[in-house]
Amino acid sequence: MSTNQRFNTLVIGSGGVATITALSLDIKNKSDVTMIVRSDYEKAVADGYSIDSCDYGIVEGWRPTKIYKSVEESVAKDEFYDYVLVTTKNIPDGPTPVSKILEPVVQSCFKSWSSLSEEQKAKKVLSIILIQNGIDIEKEVYDLLNADHLVADGIHGPKVVLLSGVQMIGSTRTAPATIQQKGQDYLILGAFDQNDKLAKQKVLEFKDIYLNEGKNVVEIDDKVRWSRWRKLVYNATINPLTAIVCLDFSRSLLFGAADEATEFQILRPAMREILDIAKADGHIIDESVMDFMISGDKKMFYKPSMMVDTERHQLMEIEVILGNPIRTAKKLAVPTPYLSMLYNIAHIIQVSNKEKMGLVEVDEVNVALK
Amino acid sequence: MSTNQRFNTLVIGSGGVATITALSLDIKNKSDVTMIVRSDYEKAVADGYSIDSCDYGIVEGWRPTKIYKSVEESVAKDEFYDYVLVTTKNIPDGPTPVSKILEPVVQSCFKSWSSLSEEQKAKKVLSIILIQNGIDIEKEVYDLLNADHLVADGIHGPKVVLLSGVQMIGSTRTAPATIQQKGQDYLILGAFDQNDKLAKQKVLEFKDIYLNEGKNVVEIDDKVRWSRWRKLVYNATINPLTAIVCLDFSRSLLFGAADEATEFQILRPAMREILDIAKADGHIIDESVMDFMISGDKKMFYKPSMMVDTERHQLMEIEVILGNPIRTAKKLAVPTPYLSMLYNIAHIIQVSNKEKMGLVEVDEVNVALK
Repeated sequence: MSTNQRFNTLVIGSGGVATITALSLDIKNKSDVTMIVRSDYEKAVADGYSIDSCDYGIVEGWRPTKIYKSVEESVAKDEFYDYVLVTTKNIPDGPTPVSKILEPVVQSCFKSWSSLSEEQKAKKVLSIILIQNGIDIEKEVYDLLNADHLVADGIHGPKVVLLSGVQMIGSTRTAPATIQQKGQDYLILGAFDQNDKLAKQKVLEFKDIYLNEGKNVVEIDDKVRWSRWRKLVYNATINPLTAIVCLDFSRSLLFGAADEATEFQILRPAMREILDIAKADGHIIDESVMDFMISGDKKMFYKPSMMVDTERHQLMEIEVILGNPIRTAKKLAVPTPYLSMLYNIAHIIQVSNKEKMGLVEVDEVNVALK
Repeated sequence: MSTNQRFNTLVIGSGGVATITALSLDIKNKSDVTMIVRSDYEKAVADGYSIDSCDYGIVEGWRPTKIYKSVEESVAKDEFYDYVLVTTKNIPDGPTPVSKILEPVVQSCFKSWSSLSEEQKAKKVLSIILIQNGIDIEKEVYDLLNADHLVADGIHGPKVVLLSGVQMIGSTRTAPATIQQKGQDYLILGAFDQNDKLAKQKVLEFKDIYLNEGKNVVEIDDKVRWSRWRKLVYNATINPLTAIVCLDFSRSLLFGAADEATEFQILRPAMREILDIAKADGHIIDESVMDFMISGDKKMFYKPSMMVDTERHQLMEIEVILGNPIRTAKKLAVPTPYLSMLYNIAHIIQVSNKEKMGLVEVDEVNVALK
């Protein structure tokens, strides 16, 4: 699908990943690209970005079409965005769940849309792309779209579709507005609802405005849920374990008890539970994926993202990565003793970090959370 | 049993517990008391101890009969000790397992004994009292006593008995050679081998040289192994969990996932496994102990000893508290998924602390432990 239409895109997220994502859109030059930049705002506006990219080479003084300090500012003029890309962490139990981030954007798009002519209205579609870990992450957004306070204003919105993105990209912010991208941008894109024809059209349309042939890669995913279960084989096991012990993956293996206990008494039993839940949910994943996930990083002294989060005393994505699979398992009567232990322990650490961040307070007199 | 014989006692251990233990012996005045004092040595020798004790009141400038800087120095003259009390932590996977601490003492006692007259020889018994957590801790000492290199010297030793001590005592070192004891010294004492008549005699004898009526308490324990299993209901569950998450007990409960997950999805299932192993090992412990252990400290914001160890980046007693029960479970075919998860995770943290302490090194090229 190729089009000459010019689109309006919004990239929400910070640091290395969001910047390269916005750069890809800008280079393709089929959309105006708005970025939300919080801490690097002054530097990004004044000097633009310095980017050293394996996909695009050295790029100095780059700026997207527009830069705003917050999502709220980006929609102050009731902007309509055709594509909203969310590359933030997905932490529904944190201070900024995705629905809260998206709400002003959705409201703006709805409002902007309502002032259009009927002909224009019919053409407009709001596509929200969640480039995030976990499973069942789309539910929170569907709930937002159906929320009373949105509908209550009498605002009848445009068609909205939800797309799933799983992105491999080795990109890091090394200094203010300075990005180093070492791994190719590889985006796996699909419709959360595979029965939604419009969503599947938008997947192809977005590929057209995002793909820079020979630079980045866009792979169309026709079995999004299967892919997300598959990714959880790693993310729901190696991620929380390394976060709990606060060690890289190789050390977590080396420091285990006798008989390679980390691999055979923690990770593989937990991975098998993910395969079991996926199967009960209708998605068969071959067992060989366990070997692949373990041997891939075994000798890398690699720090999984969730471990980096605990190391920095930041919140972890435990609900979308562990909580949701366990809740599905409960519904489908699949036992998950290993995943539950990882989740229950990680949950204690999560709330402990919330206490350190001042997000929760302990009432020591009544022994309760304030 | 009362005796006019004067004994020679050695207290190995540091800080608040060992000092009050030595003080109790000294006040009873039926033994010469030797203490091993490492970091506070200069101060203890020069000024003696300042003790504020709920059992004995204010005691200023107190010194035991002898003070040595190390176990080795305390046996340099081939001393014979009738009672050797070990109040150190029991960490067989650490740099100083109990057998290593005791070896020079045993050698000294053997040597000293061998130079006695036959009549004197017959009277001498070496009683080793392990005042420590965990289960199966006596095995390491029996192995030491039967070690080839001890027997190989042709040294025929005295009779040796092993006694078990479980001590409740709220005593802390607050400054060099300064001790504050807030909780009464309550010692539960018994023979590890209940068929060893001599050991049971020695239990009564030691009570006589240790008990100060109206001050401290000595309770005779005729079912040592049962008591140790019972104590593990707390120590093998609440201890490692709070250590892993590095939080006091109340926070570990408050910060848990939905449905009181910490209590009902971690601690109680793990406690039940201890009851199951104990039962398979021939010791019936009533289930009500679980309520007792949980409700006792629920509202105390109490930091269990193992959690204090991780907080200070010290080694934990995971082998005697978790490893040994799990090994027994394996022999008796009792499944222990919950205890094993706690053990396997705690083990990773233990070796991580060893790396920080320089006790192990990671070979990053070959991805192995050096």
